[in-house]
Amino acid sequence: MAKEKKSALKEKKGVSISEITNKSTIKAIKKKRRSEINTDALVTSILNGDITALSRAITLVESKNPTHLEKANTIIKACLPHANKSVRIGITGVPGVGKSTFIETFGKHITSKGKRIAVLAIDPSSSLTKGSILGDKTRMEDLVKDANAYIRPSASGDSLGGVARKTRETIILCEAAGFDVIIIETVGVGQSETTVHSMVDFFLLLKLAGAGDELQGIKRGIIEMADAIAINKADGDNLKPAKLAKVEFNRALHLYPEKSSSWQPKVTICSALNDEGIDSIWRIILDYAETTTKNGYFNKKRNEQNKFWLIQTIEEQLKSAFFNRPKIKKELSKQLLLIETNKTTPFAAADYLMGLKT
Amino acid sequence: MAKEKKSALKEKKGVSISEITNKSTIKAIKKKRRSEINTDALVTSILNGDITALSRAITLVESKNPTHLEKANTIIKACLPHANKSVRIGITGVPGVGKSTFIETFGKHITSKGKRIAVLAIDPSSSLTKGSILGDKTRMEDLVKDANAYIRPSASGDSLGGVARKTRETIILCEAAGFDVIIIETVGVGQSETTVHSMVDFFLLLKLAGAGDELQGIKRGIIEMADAIAINKADGDNLKPAKLAKVEFNRALHLYPEKSSSWQPKVTICSALNDEGIDSIWRIILDYAETTTKNGYFNKKRNEQNKFWLIQTIEEQLKSAFFNRPKIKKELSKQLLLIETNKTTPFAAADYLMGLKT
Repeated sequence: MAKEKKSALKEKKGVSISEITNKSTIKAIKKKRRSEINTDALVTSILNGDITALSRAITLVESKNPTHLEKANTIIKACLPHANKSVRIGITGVPGVGKSTFIETFGKHITSKGKRIAVLAIDPSSSLTKGSILGDKTRMEDLVKDANAYIRPSASGDSLGGVARKTRETIILCEAAGFDVIIIETVGVGQSETTVHSMVDFFLLLKLAGAGDELQGIKRGIIEMADAIAINKADGDNLKPAKLAKVEFNRALHLYPEKSSSWQPKVTICSALNDEGIDSIWRIILDYAETTTKNGYFNKKRNEQNKFWLIQTIEEQLKSAFFNRPKIKKELSKQLLLIETNKTTPFAAADYLMGLKT
Repeated sequence: MAKEKKSALKEKKGVSISEITNKSTIKAIKKKRRSEINTDALVTSILNGDITALSRAITLVESKNPTHLEKANTIIKACLPHANKSVRIGITGVPGVGKSTFIETFGKHITSKGKRIAVLAIDPSSSLTKGSILGDKTRMEDLVKDANAYIRPSASGDSLGGVARKTRETIILCEAAGFDVIIIETVGVGQSETTVHSMVDFFLLLKLAGAGDELQGIKRGIIEMADAIAINKADGDNLKPAKLAKVEFNRALHLYPEKSSSWQPKVTICSALNDEGIDSIWRIILDYAETTTKNGYFNKKRNEQNKFWLIQTIEEQLKSAFFNRPKIKKELSKQLLLIETNKTTPFAAADYLMGLKT
């Protein structure tokens, strides 16, 4: 019954349902009406900061139904002039580094400053498992209850590119809904960091002191992308090793060439659990935003990211259109066999496949 | 006159040129005949190990003339059944590490074992400068004179992909000409290592002891690709630091996950200048070839490389065909402007561009 009250189809009091009305007809009408989303009203609500409207719009963005996608595009277009006004922060770190606790403490800190924060996630595994790293919302109990915080589980999709598109569009919707800070979380494994890096202004790497973790980071080139490294769990017995790790990372970072932002990446320690060192991270981010806005890098980077996503999207679509052609699928496996048996070269095979008419 | 003797048009002795023969006509006929390359004869000569024929075929591969390319494809196809029988070794290292000296000493060592070696190069800068890192052949004076060695300056091209294609096809020709060892050299900067790595069986990284060089290598992920690291210039005062660096690299390499080849990368020291430690590098390579042939990885890797190049070539061609369409060029810049002024998203712009009819 509670659900029925929320429905746009709820009956006015005093109007009783005619006895001849077929129940399945009612169901069909409800279904039809539900799909007729009023995009104008939704946009107005989003711009008023209505979380329910925001959630509905994000669901449209994530839908695979073509009608929904069309509506989503209309909404995004209307929201665009009101977007672009937040600081977008990417947060990564290996499992166990304490990302959830960090985001909870950090998020509470942001809202205590009177700002609104949205937390999204990119989950490389979600495209396989259809799961979500933020699915388990109980991990951020306090932040979930905060009226100025919005937590949205990660979009699922068939490809990282698809997930990225949905996340990028969700950022626009959140910004239009008045969120000042957007956090994009990702698990520090695989190539999702690069994806996150290409859609945020500031990239924060969470680390733990000791135990080969340093090498792991260096190896994957993640340290190069970081605008700041925060060594988390710097409490109790961990405090001393964390301080040592800070010195070590600072030294390592100085060996890298200067970034085009002319921003020198910062290293800091924190304990999200004890709410220590969180404010200094926020001040680093504010400093970064101020510095790069002044030198023009902030907007330059966003423009480059947009261009990157435009080209990236086209390239993905070109590839999938080509390789999904039934004829190509069939001929490709034949050519691969010819290559294996040394009867053609990869290049001759490519020329042959490219020459096939639709 | 010397040139005329080599020409296929040389007159039999005793036959004098008719006085009415127009000199420009002779020139035109010569030019025409010269372009009519007999591919069958060329293939036969290549299979007989004829270096001149090999060089002519490589020139055809590198040519931008469509007629030449067609002939090149015919030749490569005929050579294919005779290729695939060498060990392909990629060698990289930062400028100053002593690559030329190393290749010269290493090459002499190979030929002293009765084997034939071909040295090719991939030069990321050549696509810009049309230059070549092996252009300065005088750097390998002794090897150049060796009848069992063949040194070919790097192919130039408009893109790394184009250069890579030419190099891959040149490898096939060299193998058909009976070369047992193919070296692909590249300067240790940029992404050319990845390209070289995707076309060789064994990847050798040359290093120097000390001075931040380690970090540089780790940062670029090159160490991960290496099947062996040779610390060069391990002579005189450098010997001790080189030995220390060897210990350090060995420790670092053990932290990486096991390779799918189940080959544990080796670290060794050498002095190419004094011809020290060169044989042990050759023995490492032989050991690698034997181990990976036995466990099936050697052929599996070549198959994967072929597949990679097939897909890579198609993707490059799809992209260039799309982005070079005049209409797309024009509309792309318009869409970029709309993105910059926040009037569309990269994704909506991509959809629009993809929807444009030819």
